[in-house]
Amino acid sequence: MPKKQKKVKPTGKVRIIPLGGLGEVGKNMTAIEYENEMIVIDCGIGFPDEDMPGIDLVIPDFAYLEANSDKLQGVLLTHGHEDHIGAIPYLLRTVNPPIFGTPLTLGIIRNKLQEHLLPWNPDLRTVNAGDRIKLGSFEVEFIHVNHSIADACALAIRTPLGTIVHTGDFKLDTSPIDGEMMDIVRLGEIGREGVMMLLCESTNAERPGHTPSEKKVGASLEYIFSTHEKKRIIIATFSSNVHRVQQIIDTSIRHKRKVAITGRSMLNIVSAATELGYMKIPSGVLVDLNDIRRYKPGELTLITTGSQGEPMSALYRMAFSDHSQVMLDANDLVVLSASAIPGNEKLVGRIINELSKNEVEVLHDAVVEVHVSGHACQEELKLMQALIKPKYFMPIHGESRHLAANRELAKYMGMKEKNIFLSEIGKVLEIDTAGARFIGTVPAGKVLIDGYGIGDVGNIVLRDRRHLAQDGLIVVVATVDLHEKLLLSGPDIVSRGFVYVREAEELMEEARQIAYDALMDVLESRGPADRMQIKKQVKDDLTKYLYAKTKRKPMILPVIMDI
Amino acid sequence: MPKKQKKVKPTGKVRIIPLGGLGEVGKNMTAIEYENEMIVIDCGIGFPDEDMPGIDLVIPDFAYLEANSDKLQGVLLTHGHEDHIGAIPYLLRTVNPPIFGTPLTLGIIRNKLQEHLLPWNPDLRTVNAGDRIKLGSFEVEFIHVNHSIADACALAIRTPLGTIVHTGDFKLDTSPIDGEMMDIVRLGEIGREGVMMLLCESTNAERPGHTPSEKKVGASLEYIFSTHEKKRIIIATFSSNVHRVQQIIDTSIRHKRKVAITGRSMLNIVSAATELGYMKIPSGVLVDLNDIRRYKPGELTLITTGSQGEPMSALYRMAFSDHSQVMLDANDLVVLSASAIPGNEKLVGRIINELSKNEVEVLHDAVVEVHVSGHACQEELKLMQALIKPKYFMPIHGESRHLAANRELAKYMGMKEKNIFLSEIGKVLEIDTAGARFIGTVPAGKVLIDGYGIGDVGNIVLRDRRHLAQDGLIVVVATVDLHEKLLLSGPDIVSRGFVYVREAEELMEEARQIAYDALMDVLESRGPADRMQIKKQVKDDLTKYLYAKTKRKPMILPVIMDI
Repeated sequence: MPKKQKKVKPTGKVRIIPLGGLGEVGKNMTAIEYENEMIVIDCGIGFPDEDMPGIDLVIPDFAYLEANSDKLQGVLLTHGHEDHIGAIPYLLRTVNPPIFGTPLTLGIIRNKLQEHLLPWNPDLRTVNAGDRIKLGSFEVEFIHVNHSIADACALAIRTPLGTIVHTGDFKLDTSPIDGEMMDIVRLGEIGREGVMMLLCESTNAERPGHTPSEKKVGASLEYIFSTHEKKRIIIATFSSNVHRVQQIIDTSIRHKRKVAITGRSMLNIVSAATELGYMKIPSGVLVDLNDIRRYKPGELTLITTGSQGEPMSALYRMAFSDHSQVMLDANDLVVLSASAIPGNEKLVGRIINELSKNEVEVLHDAVVEVHVSGHACQEELKLMQALIKPKYFMPIHGESRHLAANRELAKYMGMKEKNIFLSEIGKVLEIDTAGARFIGTVPAGKVLIDGYGIGDVGNIVLRDRRHLAQDGLIVVVATVDLHEKLLLSGPDIVSRGFVYVREAEELMEEARQIAYDALMDVLESRGPADRMQIKKQVKDDLTKYLYAKTKRKPMILPVIMDI
Repeated sequence: MPKKQKKVKPTGKVRIIPLGGLGEVGKNMTAIEYENEMIVIDCGIGFPDEDMPGIDLVIPDFAYLEANSDKLQGVLLTHGHEDHIGAIPYLLRTVNPPIFGTPLTLGIIRNKLQEHLLPWNPDLRTVNAGDRIKLGSFEVEFIHVNHSIADACALAIRTPLGTIVHTGDFKLDTSPIDGEMMDIVRLGEIGREGVMMLLCESTNAERPGHTPSEKKVGASLEYIFSTHEKKRIIIATFSSNVHRVQQIIDTSIRHKRKVAITGRSMLNIVSAATELGYMKIPSGVLVDLNDIRRYKPGELTLITTGSQGEPMSALYRMAFSDHSQVMLDANDLVVLSASAIPGNEKLVGRIINELSKNEVEVLHDAVVEVHVSGHACQEELKLMQALIKPKYFMPIHGESRHLAANRELAKYMGMKEKNIFLSEIGKVLEIDTAGARFIGTVPAGKVLIDGYGIGDVGNIVLRDRRHLAQDGLIVVVATVDLHEKLLLSGPDIVSRGFVYVREAEELMEEARQIAYDALMDVLESRGPADRMQIKKQVKDDLTKYLYAKTKRKPMILPVIMDI
């Protein structure tokens, strides 16, 4: 079929529209259109920045998808990480396209969807690496890649205009735990057929060399277990890394240790992965956390969540002596088999410090190689270029620095700069037989999730939260009779987060006096008094006074009640 | 003199009291007492954690020093970094001891003190490496060490009971820029005389190997300048690293570039260091920032502050096109000659991303070796142990994980565990001829600086700030006649940082109704109504309602006015 494409010159246009994951880490999502048909690849969540207090999650803006839901042929998932599938439950509130993913990916989604009430039954369709599916004018082939989760795929998307390869997240692991190396043969074949566009992940594009094999972690574990025979070993890792968990279990078995698992997501994924055959645990190895007291430290491994220092995680509670079943002491070794995601360094550090203080030995990836990345480093990214030899190239999945670094690699591999497109979310790249060009933008951005609220916290609310956090708040309340221009009660002053009031009585009394003067100024002036006027005067005078006294600018909230 | 000590058995006691810098990074400060005399080493600031919104600086709690100011013989400064001298202006508000430091250290302090109004003239006394000073029963010798600032010293403190060595911050640089290697000969001599206690910094105790020489950075700079002859080169680094700045200037001269300097602290330190002879800049090399347009990109180097991504720094303003004199584009190369201090990774990343987006080339320490640490790695820490061979050992300057790692190194070097003391701030270690032991604690902790306020923001205020940041605020105001049990006005509801009110009118109206019902409940109940009762009812009912509706817990602030 691809060969036919070369004979007839198609007149249609392909549009590539990143809706998330470019210029940012997470919430990966890309729409690809051919004429009036659209497919979407991945639908992930992002995590809030430090300037988004109170926000739980960030999802892509679905406005464009919702407005074009009639075009949507399906959603294709490359793998089961949160930043690729986490926003599916939110997408499914308004549209219900068929969703294609490998068994583990869909297994994780099914688990996740149980917590959400949806207007319809989701249409989940299982595919396997090697499968090809037809979606309107598109034909999509799933190609096995290595990553830090099993069952990850790249996609070869055939359009009437040519083939688009989307790498998903990948690395090349020549000695993977399940024996299945990334299918570079198939990628090379597709490259030989001719590829119009490569969309390639950029996470590690700044890192030279190759990403080490997952097997390397196994060797480190073997060494650690051999040198800590008398200690109980507690290992924290990402629950989705089933190969990592398998290696920890295998090493435990070799060292005659029982294994207990803790942390809700760890328990969920281990059971899903075991059911689906991605993990193999001989019977008699797993023990219940309630029974661990029966074993000596050297007879036990604990696998836990919390490798990112999450304050509610099992590991955090263990470290801060707040776990009902596990108390840690000098007989324990904690292994952090993960690296801190940028922004989490201090949280992870807090756990390491607390453990160190309590004489618990800690090993982490700066000390021993107990973690490897799941993303391609520069040599692997170059290999991808060499296999695919695309006509056009668009780096995806990364902050601007990573996208720029990936562009440099493509240039190094001989691509012309004019054929490399550094895009942004919402930016539309149009391709036809005459070439490729940016033609405009569609709505795209961040939608913030706070509790049950989707998108009800925006810039104004966040600005207020940051202001409140910075210098606190002063509420000034007074009851007035605006008609008679009389002050009936107050002004009372209430503050929170500004100063410790009991030790600043003088300051607060002076502030009350300033507010009183401002109020009376307006009430005693000629002409009618209105609330806006009073509020403005109180706010201005107090702001000036407090800044001169404290060099702080608390939020000032005058509330004037008129009787 | 040290030999005499061995003959007469002294009966006095030495006490070592860390007041900052243990279990934390920054605000380094240690008190050492012999009987009724005290000396203090360093007096630094720390930076606020992310759970201290609005806080500018953290200083040590001076309560113990203030209560014992009659004992205080002097303050000894190891070097001029903020985390060692930054709290001096605050200490000088209540006590005025003699302060000893090397010329550059005191030069930086003089600069700093200009911004503070003090009750007296500070008593600054210049010393040089090799000097010995007598302070009551103490004799203190300053010993040259290498560090990321010039003029840094370790201290050998002789007490009647034996010698205490305090390393300050150090590294061993065998090829330092000023030609002065750390005085390991003198340290070894003192070790041979016999050392009672080693207080050794721990910052890099987790890192194997040696810290590279500052000269390594020079080689990287040379390579970068040679390969970017056509570009303007902008280099951001720590202003206090005068050797780094000197290397940048030297490299610029070799490549026939003029140098412009920007950023207030960079200008301050370059001028102080040049005056004191720590930097040598041939005339004609420096150009004014206002004149840079006269030069082609390849003829110019800019040295700037902002290597930590500080939002008000010169580099930040350049990156975000907010600098009046410097606009960056594809003709520029930005070199970040620094590593991000933990917690600053995201700020630094923001600058790199913005520059990448604008086609500005960026080099940083993950890509080229444009920065080296100023702290000893494991091999240097072991060398210190081997030179000093102390009887007792206390790791200082580091989080718990670093102190624990330093203890492991001492054990590896053959020290007995019982002679190693992992201390905390405020914990008193007493030493006499019979041995060493912890004997209790003195007041110690964090004092927070917010604007002009010193210590007026404490845990309650911070807790309120965090609460406000998390979910915002709802103020409920009503005017009542408690005597007649009447509602006169309200309840009005004002919210900030909770939801965007214009899009949540229904929710806010329902909340008002809940508040109204709660109010009326109390007013219509039998018996007298009081304000506390009303407030409690309103708060409880609204909290419950809003959590059920939004899964958020805004701070609820009922204000009830009684007429």
